Amino acid sequence: MSILKLLGIDVPIIQAPMAGTSTPALAAAVSNAGGLGSIGIGAMTAPEARAAIAAIRERTARPFNVNVFCHQPAGRDEARERAWLEQLRPEFARFGAVPPAEIHEAYRSFLKDPDTLAALLETRPKVVSFHFGLPEAGWIAQLRDAGIVLFSTATNEREARLAVDAGVNAIVAQGFEAGGHRGMFNADGPDDQLGTAVLVRQLVKALDIPIIAAGGIMDGAGISASLRTGAAAAQLGTAFIATDESAADAGYRATLFSDAAQHTVMTRAISGRPARCLANSFTALGASIPAEEVPAYPIAYSAAKALHALAKAGGDFGYGAYWAGQAAPRARSMPAGKLMAALIQEMQRT
Amino acid sequence: MSILKLLGIDVPIIQAPMAGTSTPALAAAVSNAGGLGSIGIGAMTAPEARAAIAAIRERTARPFNVNVFCHQPAGRDEARERAWLEQLRPEFARFGAVPPAEIHEAYRSFLKDPDTLAALLETRPKVVSFHFGLPEAGWIAQLRDAGIVLFSTATNEREARLAVDAGVNAIVAQGFEAGGHRGMFNADGPDDQLGTAVLVRQLVKALDIPIIAAGGIMDGAGISASLRTGAAAAQLGTAFIATDESAADAGYRATLFSDAAQHTVMTRAISGRPARCLANSFTALGASIPAEEVPAYPIAYSAAKALHALAKAGGDFGYGAYWAGQAAPRARSMPAGKLMAALIQEMQRT
Repeated sequence: MSILKLLGIDVPIIQAPMAGTSTPALAAAVSNAGGLGSIGIGAMTAPEARAAIAAIRERTARPFNVNVFCHQPAGRDEARERAWLEQLRPEFARFGAVPPAEIHEAYRSFLKDPDTLAALLETRPKVVSFHFGLPEAGWIAQLRDAGIVLFSTATNEREARLAVDAGVNAIVAQGFEAGGHRGMFNADGPDDQLGTAVLVRQLVKALDIPIIAAGGIMDGAGISASLRTGAAAAQLGTAFIATDESAADAGYRATLFSDAAQHTVMTRAISGRPARCLANSFTALGASIPAEEVPAYPIAYSAAKALHALAKAGGDFGYGAYWAGQAAPRARSMPAGKLMAALIQEMQRT
Repeated sequence: MSILKLLGIDVPIIQAPMAGTSTPALAAAVSNAGGLGSIGIGAMTAPEARAAIAAIRERTARPFNVNVFCHQPAGRDEARERAWLEQLRPEFARFGAVPPAEIHEAYRSFLKDPDTLAALLETRPKVVSFHFGLPEAGWIAQLRDAGIVLFSTATNEREARLAVDAGVNAIVAQGFEAGGHRGMFNADGPDDQLGTAVLVRQLVKALDIPIIAAGGIMDGAGISASLRTGAAAAQLGTAFIATDESAADAGYRATLFSDAAQHTVMTRAISGRPARCLANSFTALGASIPAEEVPAYPIAYSAAKALHALAKAGGDFGYGAYWAGQAAPRARSMPAGKLMAALIQEMQRT
């Protein structure tokens, strides 16, 4: 069965979930335009997720995707966390403040969040997608039995095979070009940093389920090229950051349309996991810090968010988790529906 | 003018120059099949280059490409070189030997090699391509006046613009996926690590000359996808390593068809410049070594070659400069002409 039929969509374009940047209005606009809109609920509580799903349904009757974070819950390491806060002390001092006394796991992994599972089973979005890993077999069985189509991110063939064996219906092949958090199941393991096209082609040859290309795709020609390499669809995130419906703040948008877009950086200094960000003060800081000094995800993220909030209050947007992929310079600012129309037209032209 | 017409070739397929692995027989086989064969003369003297060019002409009357290395000549740093040899001492000891007393610049940069310039002006290959930088304006003018088409590698838009301003006719857009030496003009500068498709798309939009996609392309679908992103042609290197005509030794071929192909590594520990290599003892060693400890290119390369020769004599192929791109697992072993026929057929099929 084609992925369009499987998902009930018209065009092979998926808006990436982008927790914190996606909104119900963005997801609905993409779905209403014939693609698959997505909402990232990784940092939401179950009631917040229910509200977001309801808000999408108010705006569209079409299929959409709900993305959850399936990381192994953070191992606490108080010494490392204290040392990290000390390391950030000079940055906080720049804004006349001190680091928080402690940092913590600000949101739960889906793996330990049965309330969110219950919310998904009740609300039954067309698609649920997993990032950072996979839930246990029983949970996957319940989601499948509820008629939900399941995606999993994979950054290499090994992860993709684990996902296929676990019963997911399609793989989001996330290349090294992609913005935001790299979906590697083990954030501390080796990373072959495979580019999108290389990964897609390898997975298409190795596996028998639809492969979705993610990373570096910004226009119809890119979508078209992905399909040529055998992808069933393309997932675009950065392309949607500057749409009217996105939650990206003014600093994020300004940075996206600045020279910083030419220099995205894979850093773990912001959240504790490797993620691709527009070059800023935080990525510069992270460049010289060994991975083992950064607290685990998402504990480190608490410190980053505190620092960003402080800096932003002082008019400095240099500490934002302004995730973006390598093709950030080609972002477009317009309503999401208009962007979808442009993407579809560009695809047809190539 | 289309690149096919500009170069006088039938299909938009360029065999990457791969110094040390390319051979006159390989270049001729690719050119005879309608593509553009290449020979990398970066490590050759001018007489050796003349002989290689003559050997190609014995095998084909069709156009081919001669690639030169345009790196800034190595800055000597005796303290660093001695420390590097000390660091390699345990590796040499594994084979009952000691490191060489000193290492040196085993081959000259084209920038300082007027004999090779003279050889090119006399032999007039259809294409001369520059890697690692650009020769001075006077040399470029002489090559152009001789009717030679000029390519330059670029890993970002800045390098591409320098090349365009210098008068080259086409850009080889080398993505982070690509095997072998990364063509960055400044090996010690920052690297945005752009993937092939991202870079191609950016250059196609920014510049008005043909862009050649290089990195991660192994089959007709990949070539076809590159053309969709606006590339004028695709350059494939790793795809040709295991052809009958390549100079790759048995250790290289065995490593290419082993699990190592799944894990290519960008390392500067082998040559002194970042280059993508099949995972081996050397890339493992390099993983923990700060860039500033490795002597400059190509001085470090002398030590690596000595160690590889020693290890190879002992039946250990773990120290070879076995360059390969991320898509190495899809290499094919067959005559180059047969591979070309397969690539063309696959392109037509997509």
